[in-house]
Amino acid sequence: MSAPAGLVSTISGKTYPLDRLEEFAENGESLEVSLPDIAHAQHRSSPHLWERFGDFLPFPDMNPDRSLGEGNTPLIPGGRQLHEWTGLPNLLLKNETQNPTWSFKDRGSLTCMFLADFLGERVAATISTGNMGHSLAAYGARAGVKVIVFVPGFAPHEKVDAMAIHGATVLRVEAPDYSVMKRHVLGLAGALGVRIVSGNGPVRVEGYKLTAFELYEQMEGHVPDYIAVPTSACGHVRGIFKGYRELREAGWIRSIPRFIIVQARNNNPITGSLNRGEEKIVPVSNVLTIAEAITTGDPPGGEELLQKARTFGWLGEDVTEEDILESQRRLAAGGFFVEPAAATSLAAVRSLVRDRRIDADATVVLMLTGAGLKDMDVLRHQRCGAKNSSLSTVASDLRAVLAERTIAPRGTVPDR
Amino acid sequence: MSAPAGLVSTISGKTYPLDRLEEFAENGESLEVSLPDIAHAQHRSSPHLWERFGDFLPFPDMNPDRSLGEGNTPLIPGGRQLHEWTGLPNLLLKNETQNPTWSFKDRGSLTCMFLADFLGERVAATISTGNMGHSLAAYGARAGVKVIVFVPGFAPHEKVDAMAIHGATVLRVEAPDYSVMKRHVLGLAGALGVRIVSGNGPVRVEGYKLTAFELYEQMEGHVPDYIAVPTSACGHVRGIFKGYRELREAGWIRSIPRFIIVQARNNNPITGSLNRGEEKIVPVSNVLTIAEAITTGDPPGGEELLQKARTFGWLGEDVTEEDILESQRRLAAGGFFVEPAAATSLAAVRSLVRDRRIDADATVVLMLTGAGLKDMDVLRHQRCGAKNSSLSTVASDLRAVLAERTIAPRGTVPDR
Repeated sequence: MSAPAGLVSTISGKTYPLDRLEEFAENGESLEVSLPDIAHAQHRSSPHLWERFGDFLPFPDMNPDRSLGEGNTPLIPGGRQLHEWTGLPNLLLKNETQNPTWSFKDRGSLTCMFLADFLGERVAATISTGNMGHSLAAYGARAGVKVIVFVPGFAPHEKVDAMAIHGATVLRVEAPDYSVMKRHVLGLAGALGVRIVSGNGPVRVEGYKLTAFELYEQMEGHVPDYIAVPTSACGHVRGIFKGYRELREAGWIRSIPRFIIVQARNNNPITGSLNRGEEKIVPVSNVLTIAEAITTGDPPGGEELLQKARTFGWLGEDVTEEDILESQRRLAAGGFFVEPAAATSLAAVRSLVRDRRIDADATVVLMLTGAGLKDMDVLRHQRCGAKNSSLSTVASDLRAVLAERTIAPRGTVPDR
Repeated sequence: MSAPAGLVSTISGKTYPLDRLEEFAENGESLEVSLPDIAHAQHRSSPHLWERFGDFLPFPDMNPDRSLGEGNTPLIPGGRQLHEWTGLPNLLLKNETQNPTWSFKDRGSLTCMFLADFLGERVAATISTGNMGHSLAAYGARAGVKVIVFVPGFAPHEKVDAMAIHGATVLRVEAPDYSVMKRHVLGLAGALGVRIVSGNGPVRVEGYKLTAFELYEQMEGHVPDYIAVPTSACGHVRGIFKGYRELREAGWIRSIPRFIIVQARNNNPITGSLNRGEEKIVPVSNVLTIAEAITTGDPPGGEELLQKARTFGWLGEDVTEEDILESQRRLAAGGFFVEPAAATSLAAVRSLVRDRRIDADATVVLMLTGAGLKDMDVLRHQRCGAKNSSLSTVASDLRAVLAERTIAPRGTVPDR
């Protein structure tokens, strides 16, 4: 690399060094890594994705021992049932639930460990109720980096245990509001000299870029028309976009996909602000959704997405609780068991096709962001249990089942 | 293929047609697929593992639409901590938790769907408390095959829901004993003309062969000295062995790995019988273990493993409940969160090294068979929760954590 990489504020363009401890600019803007020269980037030969695309990453050395085998996830045609339901024959599912901790977060945790190596940091903290904390805990365990996760008082016992068994220290912080807790804890980073990793931080975005590179390989250089991304802290959609943008800058591709930002209607600071034409994110607070993995009501640095959506013609769509439950069932009926947040994009693209905001012949990739096993509680709303039988009745019960036509299970919307 | 594939009884050698409905011989022996001619098998070029090794599979056509993206799982060095704890510097982890339903079972479910296509069967049943039922339900959903899962009365609600959301019909059969229920239900197959898929059935074994082929590619033709497999219904170890044996028959490799059969000491029909030198499996009944995925007390066709273990010098090792909990923690402290059954093999190989039954310089592959998320209840025994904090104390709490040395979490053994 000809010059060291740095950070740049995504709206003002102000530059910072790569070792900046805070993950946002002073004015709250999101930051991204600026690479000195990718015009001559090479597609290298290596078993490791991050080495094949190493010219696009800011780290001079990347230790393969930091990897838990993230990425390399399947890209699978949606199948007849999902094609028919959405009206999209060219629907593709990118199954990120097949990552080491069963969510897309692992790609960002890998690059966090590369950064820790690069800067010699031996501690990484984060604020999380689930996937992010679990992923960082696993990667920290692998790399010998001490991980501290701040969780809100309401975090379920199981999610805390899954972080703690990796050796992470979990601090359960009682506070009247999760957003208040987040701001307070983030404020400690500078004073205590500890990096508090955000889902929208610039180095995690470098990890999510790897998804674009992987899609480039899986689609043999073709570019999908749309990529739908369930969105909370914004880092995921930013990362995939940045990967494609850099591939275009390097001359490897001519066009880049348009993004579909998907949120729950009950918690839609980005899609709501986007579709109302706001310049700034209008926060949402204290509205519950079953899509627990995408509940950031006031995403730091979220203005960048509004700006990029306007510049590049991205779409925003939010979906109801009923839609989320139905999408979870529809995906499962096609073979994919995902958590509610990951199901949102199926309903979103169906709605966009119906409203003719996207063409039915478009190639659309849905990011299946997290595994259904992450939230088993939600299944109580899906009315999908067992039939009772016994030794004396099982033969006739089986005969009756064999005579049945398959009927899709029906769900119920939770009371709030 | 020069002649159609058939089935052969693994001890008597009696032959059967591939479309035999029952998955065992009349005398209870396990069956396996016999391939007409693999001497000239080619390593073909394809993105699909089952096509690259298609000459070793019994199906003339394999529809890629049946795949959910199983396999292609990482093979990762154990890392410093696990090397030190086991005494094995050449320890490799094959992370089968990164399959579509987060266990190794998916490889066998794929070949079940190929069989269903081949024979025109539109229903597949199985008896399961967890991974097998979930996997078959997902693959059946994908393929449009109706899946029926018989579960025992004690099956947890969550595991049932995870099968049922895929559209499977789950029959919860009340019976005094799970083994009694199994035998009774298996007896219905012939009368009602429905295939009841067993974890030790010959076509699932063809799916588990794919793991051997994948290891052959990942290790660039090298063969590990040992492969340790948590074992319940026997199909997994049989399948990996059969894959290597066929590669040797085809002249691609010269030696085949030795297998380490791993069970919980509380439920060890195979390792117990093997280490006592029995000719037949001596069943174990009603002994509980936290390793819920490997609780078959009387594995149908299990004699085959005893015979192969004697012929090929395989090892058997069983591990205590304390060992299982500690292994789960040790794996998590190295970055891998697995269910208790999957953790057993770590303790087993450590014990075998200590007893000098395997050399410390051996290359040993551990099969991480299922994800930790499959059994969150067990974590209550791991004493790995959160520390309480609040807005007013979080700064000092964080300072205290930063000053600490990392201490491995400690577990407790459940009362039985």
